[in-house]
Amino acid sequence: MRILLTNDDGIYAPGLRALRRELMKIGEVVVVAPATEQSATGHSVTLYTPLLVNEVFDEVDGDRQFLGWAVEGRPADCMKLALLELLKEPPDVVVSGMNAGSNAGINVLYSGTVAAAIEAAFYRFTAIACSLEYEKKIYDYAKGAAYCAQVVKQILAGNPPAGRLFNVNIPVLERGPIRGIKVLPQNATPYREKFDRRVNPRGRVYFWNSPEFHCPEPHPDTDVTALAEQYITVTPLMFDLTARDQLASLAEKTWTVTEVE
Amino acid sequence: MRILLTNDDGIYAPGLRALRRELMKIGEVVVVAPATEQSATGHSVTLYTPLLVNEVFDEVDGDRQFLGWAVEGRPADCMKLALLELLKEPPDVVVSGMNAGSNAGINVLYSGTVAAAIEAAFYRFTAIACSLEYEKKIYDYAKGAAYCAQVVKQILAGNPPAGRLFNVNIPVLERGPIRGIKVLPQNATPYREKFDRRVNPRGRVYFWNSPEFHCPEPHPDTDVTALAEQYITVTPLMFDLTARDQLASLAEKTWTVTEVE
Repeated sequence: MRILLTNDDGIYAPGLRALRRELMKIGEVVVVAPATEQSATGHSVTLYTPLLVNEVFDEVDGDRQFLGWAVEGRPADCMKLALLELLKEPPDVVVSGMNAGSNAGINVLYSGTVAAAIEAAFYRFTAIACSLEYEKKIYDYAKGAAYCAQVVKQILAGNPPAGRLFNVNIPVLERGPIRGIKVLPQNATPYREKFDRRVNPRGRVYFWNSPEFHCPEPHPDTDVTALAEQYITVTPLMFDLTARDQLASLAEKTWTVTEVE
Repeated sequence: MRILLTNDDGIYAPGLRALRRELMKIGEVVVVAPATEQSATGHSVTLYTPLLVNEVFDEVDGDRQFLGWAVEGRPADCMKLALLELLKEPPDVVVSGMNAGSNAGINVLYSGTVAAAIEAAFYRFTAIACSLEYEKKIYDYAKGAAYCAQVVKQILAGNPPAGRLFNVNIPVLERGPIRGIKVLPQNATPYREKFDRRVNPRGRVYFWNSPEFHCPEPHPDTDVTALAEQYITVTPLMFDLTARDQLASLAEKTWTVTEVE
């Protein structure tokens, strides 16, 4: 099995390395990932600056081992370049992660990890985004990656049709044992967030996005709630944002256009 | 009516200015927009650098007129700051645009214009993204904005419930007369795109994303097709990416977790 691995924390991030070690047990892994951290860059793409690419090698027991390509761009750029230019053969599956921090609820939209997976699904590859929730800056990447690999294997065992897209989140491991795996929708209820307003020495106002970002009332049957209850979550995603339930009523309205001279 | 206006081309972009002139005929307009161009930044948010904010005034017939705030950040940052910090009163509607270039099909995901509208809808405001398709770098912003305003008025006349989100595209105006308004889904069939591979004077490989980006086989009943047929398109959007049609079958599978030591 050929596995293309990417992330948004950058090619040197420990979460990617830990997940790579696990995925190498089930296939051949090639990495195409951003050269530097690209957290919260969402589905950005680089159209106006060049995408510099470097081959990356690891030293393993004195041997030079080919890891893949570092791209000076966004996670979605990495996927486009990997699938159109860099890989000799198409992958059997694309895995993105393992991200340091969960990607549930509205964070799915901000996440470069998920955007890379969406991009791969858009090119009709099976794509799986993997993220590890954390608290207090403690991360057990090896353990988190081992759980991710268990889920990845089960997803692939189901032979999903081309272009299917899955979002996997592992709960905070230090909080207690994993209670199981739940398949649930993305939470869509509002979050609460804050800014810290400051004035610089020259009198100019600026704001810092505060880390006190939380979802006060998540829907009980969603990714956010299940993660908090110590479940691994799997959410099937798609990239058609059409609100299909509103199409018919909106189309029924009488729309008029007056020609503008 | 209080209208919050933003975009991704930046506060000094002519598309925003043209749309503002039209929207001022139907309400009070305050602008909170990026200080510089933020095209194709998708749903990026700025978490690790400060968001500098500047009040912007226009000279109109010798008078200093308050336009709004320029934010050194992404379109989604502008919406968060506007709604949480900058505006004294909540807006009745949020309009994003008018973008120079259409935002249909997969471009909906890359678009900062649409991301700003999604962010506003996430905060439960009515939000409308407006974009003008163009060819050969010719844009009639005034005419495009007049068409956008016609659609915005009709959407608002329908009193949409809080949090509704609409994506409006105006076709290339120089191609011929507007044939009408169509309510259609976002196109989700694959695009074709290319990179231009080059080597720099120091031997390093880099790629340029090519502008030859097109959708060879759009679904006949989608935004991409109707735009090409000279219709204004309206697509209701949402920000829950859950593939609901796959939830039940995926949940039915037997999922197992083995505890990792």
